[in-house]
Amino acid sequence: MPFPAPLRGVVPPVLTPLTPAGEVDTASLRRLLEHLLASGAHGLFLLGSSGEAAYLTDAQRRTVLETAVDAVAGRVPVLAGVIEATTPRVLERAADAVRAGADALVATAPFYARTHPAEIADHFRRVRAGADRPLFAYDIPVAVHTKLPRDVLLGLAADATLAGLKDSSGDEGSLRRLLLALRRTAPGFTVLTGSELTVDGALLAGADGVVPGLGNVDAAGYVRLYEAARAEDWKAARAEQDRLAALFALTEAGDPARMGANSSALGAFKAAAHLLGLLDCPATAAPQVPLDEAAVARVRDRLREADLL
Amino acid sequence: MPFPAPLRGVVPPVLTPLTPAGEVDTASLRRLLEHLLASGAHGLFLLGSSGEAAYLTDAQRRTVLETAVDAVAGRVPVLAGVIEATTPRVLERAADAVRAGADALVATAPFYARTHPAEIADHFRRVRAGADRPLFAYDIPVAVHTKLPRDVLLGLAADATLAGLKDSSGDEGSLRRLLLALRRTAPGFTVLTGSELTVDGALLAGADGVVPGLGNVDAAGYVRLYEAARAEDWKAARAEQDRLAALFALTEAGDPARMGANSSALGAFKAAAHLLGLLDCPATAAPQVPLDEAAVARVRDRLREADLL
Amino acid sequence: MPFPAPLRGVVPPVLTPLTPAGEVDTASLRRLLEHLLASGAHGLFLLGSSGEAAYLTDAQRRTVLETAVDAVAGRVPVLAGVIEATTPRVLERAADAVRAGADALVATAPFYARTHPAEIADHFRRVRAGADRPLFAYDIPVAVHTKLPRDVLLGLAADATLAGLKDSSGDEGSLRRLLLALRRTAPGFTVLTGSELTVDGALLAGADGVVPGLGNVDAAGYVRLYEAARAEDWKAARAEQDRLAALFALTEAGDPARMGANSSALGAFKAAAHLLGLLDCPATAAPQVPLDEAAVARVRDRLREADLL
Amino acid sequence: MPFPAPLRGVVPPVLTPLTPAGEVDTASLRRLLEHLLASGAHGLFLLGSSGEAAYLTDAQRRTVLETAVDAVAGRVPVLAGVIEATTPRVLERAADAVRAGADALVATAPFYARTHPAEIADHFRRVRAGADRPLFAYDIPVAVHTKLPRDVLLGLAADATLAGLKDSSGDEGSLRRLLLALRRTAPGFTVLTGSELTVDGALLAGADGVVPGLGNVDAAGYVRLYEAARAEDWKAARAEQDRLAALFALTEAGDPARMGANSSALGAFKAAAHLLGLLDCPATAAPQVPLDEAAVARVRDRLREADLL
Repeated sequence: MPFPAPLRGVVPPVLTPLTPAGEVDTASLRRLLEHLLASGAHGLFLLGSSGEAAYLTDAQRRTVLETAVDAVAGRVPVLAGVIEATTPRVLERAADAVRAGADALVATAPFYARTHPAEIADHFRRVRAGADRPLFAYDIPVAVHTKLPRDVLLGLAADATLAGLKDSSGDEGSLRRLLLALRRTAPGFTVLTGSELTVDGALLAGADGVVPGLGNVDAAGYVRLYEAARAEDWKAARAEQDRLAALFALTEAGDPARMGANSSALGAFKAAAHLLGLLDCPATAAPQVPLDEAAVARVRDRLREADLL
Repeated sequence: MPFPAPLRGVVPPVLTPLTPAGEVDTASLRRLLEHLLASGAHGLFLLGSSGEAAYLTDAQRRTVLETAVDAVAGRVPVLAGVIEATTPRVLERAADAVRAGADALVATAPFYARTHPAEIADHFRRVRAGADRPLFAYDIPVAVHTKLPRDVLLGLAADATLAGLKDSSGDEGSLRRLLLALRRTAPGFTVLTGSELTVDGALLAGADGVVPGLGNVDAAGYVRLYEAARAEDWKAARAEQDRLAALFALTEAGDPARMGANSSALGAFKAAAHLLGLLDCPATAAPQVPLDEAAVARVRDRLREADLL
Repeated sequence: MPFPAPLRGVVPPVLTPLTPAGEVDTASLRRLLEHLLASGAHGLFLLGSSGEAAYLTDAQRRTVLETAVDAVAGRVPVLAGVIEATTPRVLERAADAVRAGADALVATAPFYARTHPAEIADHFRRVRAGADRPLFAYDIPVAVHTKLPRDVLLGLAADATLAGLKDSSGDEGSLRRLLLALRRTAPGFTVLTGSELTVDGALLAGADGVVPGLGNVDAAGYVRLYEAARAEDWKAARAEQDRLAALFALTEAGDPARMGANSSALGAFKAAAHLLGLLDCPATAAPQVPLDEAAVARVRDRLREADLL
Repeated sequence: MPFPAPLRGVVPPVLTPLTPAGEVDTASLRRLLEHLLASGAHGLFLLGSSGEAAYLTDAQRRTVLETAVDAVAGRVPVLAGVIEATTPRVLERAADAVRAGADALVATAPFYARTHPAEIADHFRRVRAGADRPLFAYDIPVAVHTKLPRDVLLGLAADATLAGLKDSSGDEGSLRRLLLALRRTAPGFTVLTGSELTVDGALLAGADGVVPGLGNVDAAGYVRLYEAARAEDWKAARAEQDRLAALFALTEAGDPARMGANSSALGAFKAAAHLLGLLDCPATAAPQVPLDEAAVARVRDRLREADLL
C-alpha cells in the first residue's frame, strides 16, 4: 500500500503506556491502539511529544514501534517520531524506525545547537536521503525553539524532500499562508495540525487532518469533528470542537506551582486514559511530576462533564 | 446611542495619513474614513498599531481623534487607542480621547516596565475607573511582550471592567477557550480578532468581528467575509479569506535586510492606500524605513492580483 | 563646564520620591540628591528605570528635571532619561529636558514597535540632531526587548552621535568586546554599566563607571568600590562589591506570587531610602504593587546586615 | 586520586576532531589532548557544546571518552558531558561515561520537554543516584532554554547532589550572588565559568576556573590569565583577557546570512586548530555549514594578530 498523498483525517499521537517501574507496557499499548482504531483513527503517530519520546531510551522507542507495527498490522499508516537534536542522531533513529516497519518518519529541526534556515533545510534533505520513507516535518517551537520558516517548508515540499507537515506551532496565520501556497506548488503534500483547539478552523482553511494529543482521550470526538468538516457541516464541526475545547481543560489539572506544563498535560492524558480503562497504569516518565489525587479528581470531573465516564 | 454589546463586524484599525513633513494629513484621513464607511465598516479603531500610535505625539493623537469623531459623526462607534507604557500615562491619553469624543477606549497591559497579572488587572481597573467610556483590552504580545492571561481577562469581563478584547496575540487556541468561557460568564462582551489571516476560523469559533490592518486596503473584502460568516456560508467565507491571505503578502514588500517588519507592513499598507487614491502621501513616521520603488512595485502587483487596481 | 569625555565614576539613577497621592515629592527629591552628592556621586541620572520614568506623566518628568537641575546647581552633570517608544516622542521629551537644563540625554532604542538595526541607528541620529546635548544610549533589553547591536554602537560612537552608553544588558561578554573596540575608535566615549553586581569586573574590564539602582540605598559603598578600582586595589573593590551584592538581596523582598520584579525591586529601593530617612513616603507609582509589612521587614534586615541602619 | 573539591583552573571543552567522512579522528584527538596538557590545562571536558556532543552518535561519544581517558591517563581529571533531553536518556549516557572511565559527569537540565524547577532538581538527583561519579550542572540557556534557578543550585550543592557548576549562562550578576551564597553553604563546590570573555572578572568574583571553548585555540593564554588571577596580578589578568577577547572575534568568521552561530563558532575553532596543526581536518558535523575560504582567511588573520601563527 503506497503512503497516501495527502494523508487525511485523525492521526492521534499515541501515548506510551509505562509500567510503575518505567518500562513500556506493551499490553496497554496494544489495547490503546485497538481503541484508537475502533474509534476511527486514520493513522497513528508513535513517539511524538504525547508519546513522551523525549523521555524514552532508544531501546524503549524500538519496543514501542515494533509493538505498534505488529498491532496495527497495516490497517492504517504508522508514523514514527525520530526526535533527536541533530542529523546524525536522527539518522540512527530513522534507521531503527525503518527496521521496525514504520510507514513514515516525523522529524523536527535541529535543537539544542543553535541552527539556521540553511542548516534546517540540509538537515531534512539528509534525513530523507538516509531513510527510505516519506518524511514529515514536525514544527513545534515550544520544544525546538525554532519556527520552521515558510519558505524552507515550501522548498522542501516542492522537491519532495518532505511528504508532509505536523504543525504544532500554534501560528494559524502562518499556516493559512502555507496552505495557500502549497495548493499551487505541492498538491499531494499533507498538512496536519497539532493544535487541538482550532481543528475546525484549520480544516476550514484546508488542512488535511489533525494530530490531537487529546485524541488519546476522545478519538471518537475528533473523528466526528473531522467527518463533519468533510461534509461541510461547519455547525456540527464547531459544536464538536467546543465540546473538545472544554474537555481540554483537563490538561491544567496539575498544580503549576508544583510541576511544569508537560507534567500536567501528559499526566492528565494518561490519568484520563487510565480512568477510561485504556492503560493499566497512569505513570509518566521521570522527571515529570505525577498528578496527585486532587489533580486526578479534576481529570475525572472533566471526563464526566464530557460524558466520557 | 449606547455602545453595542457586543460590537459586531469589521472595525478597521485606521491608518494615520502623514504629510511628507510628518504631520497628520487630516484631509486624507477624512477621505480614508469615508471610504471605510462606504465599504461597510461597522466601527473604526483609531490610534492602534496600524495607526502608528506609538510614533505620534500627544498633539498628533488628539488631531487624529478630533478629526475622526467629526468625520464619522456618530455613524459607527469610534474606538480610540490609548497606547502608553503605564497607568498614569494611559489615564492622560484616555482623558484626551474622552474630550475628543471617542466612544470607547483600547488599552494594552503595561509595557517597558516588567509587570505581573495582578498589576495588569489593577491597571485596567484604574483606567476604567478614570475614564467614563467602555474599555477594550488590546492583547498584542509582539509589542507588549506579555500575553494577557485568560483568567485575568475573564475576571475583568465578569465585573464589567472590560467591555471587550482586541486579540492580536495570534494564539487561536487560547482564544477558543476564552470564547467558550465568556459565553457563560459575560455574554455581552465583545471579542474582535486582530489576526487578518484566520478571520473565517475566528468567526466560526464565535468571535464577534475583526480589526484587520489589511482592512485599510480592502475593507469591502473583510465585510464580505464577515457577512458570509454571519450567513453561515463558510465556503464563501473561506474563499474570501483565501483571497485576502494572498493579498496580505504585500506586507512583506520591504527588504528584511534593510528594515524591520513594522516598516515593511505599515509602509505597504500606506503604499497600497496611496496607490488606491486614499492617501495623498504614503509616508510612515520616523524612524521607520520607507519602501523603495521595487517594494512599491511589489505592493502594486499584489493589488492587481487581487483586482483592486 | 563642558561635559566630561568620558564621564567617570558613580552616577546613581535617582529614585523619584512620590507623595501618597502619587505626585512628585520635590522636597524629598532635593534631600535625596543632597545625600547622593554628599556620598560622592560623580553624576546624577534622573528619569531612568529606577526613577520610574515609565510611570511618570510628562508634567511630572519636567518637575523632576527642573527640581534636580536647580538642586544640583552644576556641582555634577545631570543626565536626563527621555524614555518614549519612538523618535518623534523622544524628541519632545528631549526638548523638555533641554529646556529644564539637563546636561545630557539618555535614550533607549525604539520599543513597542518592532524595530531593526538600521532604524535604531537612524533613531539615535535624529534624536542627537534634534537636541543640542550629549546623547547616551540606554541598553536595557529587559524593558526594550532589543539588545543594541555592537556594530551599531560602534558606528554611532565613531561619528560622535553618541557620547556614551549605559549598559544594563547584563551581557558582560559583549560589553568586553565593545570596550576593546572603543579604545581604538572612540577613546572619549563613556561606558557606564548598569549591572550593580559586577561593577568590580566591569571596571577591571575598562568601564568608566556605574549607574547603580542600589546606589540610592548605599551610594557611599559604590563610591568606595569605584575609588578602590581607580587605585587598582582589586581586593578592596571585590570586598565592597561582595558586600553590595549581599545587600542587593533586598530587591527580592516582595512576594513573587503577588507582584512583578519591578514592583519588588523599586518598592525595596524606596522602602530602604524611606527607612534611611531619605524619602518621606516609600510609595511607588500605580499599578505597581506596594510592599507589605513583611517585605519591608526583610528590607530592614538587609539594611541592618549591611550596617546601614 | 579523589576528585578535587573544588576543581580549580583551566578546563578546556575539548573539540571532537572528525574525519572528512564524519567519523571521530582519534589520532587528532590524542594530539589535541597532549597539546592542551602541555599548555597547562588543569582538567579536560569532553563532549560539551564545543565537543559537538549534540551532533555525535552514542557510539562516537563512547569512542571520544575511551580515547580521552586512555590518552590523559590520569594526569588531570576528565569530565564527560552527558547531553540528552531527559533523565532516562542521561542515565544511559552516564553509564557509558562511567564505563569509559570518566572522572566526573556534566549534565544539563531537561530540554525539548518543558520543565519546572522541581523537575530539574529531581533530574539531577536521579542522575547522581544512578551514576557513581561527581556531577556538574551545565547551565547553558542558549541551548537548553531554561536558566538554572539559583535556589535549585544552592539546594543541590548543599546536599552534595552536585559537585560543581559550569556556568555558560552569561548572567554574571546571578553568578556573583551564587558564589557569595556558596561560600557559606558549600565551600568545596566548584564553579567554572564558560564565558570566555569575562574570565578575569569571574575569577575576581571568586569563580574557581574556566571552561573556555577558545581554549582549544589558545590554552596557554587562558592558563596565563588564570595564573595571573591566582597571583592577584589583575593588571596582567586583564591584559591577557583583552588579548583573548580580540582573538575571540574569530568566532564571527562565518557569514551570518549563510549559517548559524554554532556553525561559525565551531567551524572557526576547528579551522584555527587545523591551521595550528592540532587537527588533520577542520570538518564539523552535519548539518553545520562549513566555513568557506574567505572565512578561513579571517580565522588566519585573527591567529596572526594574536601571534599564534
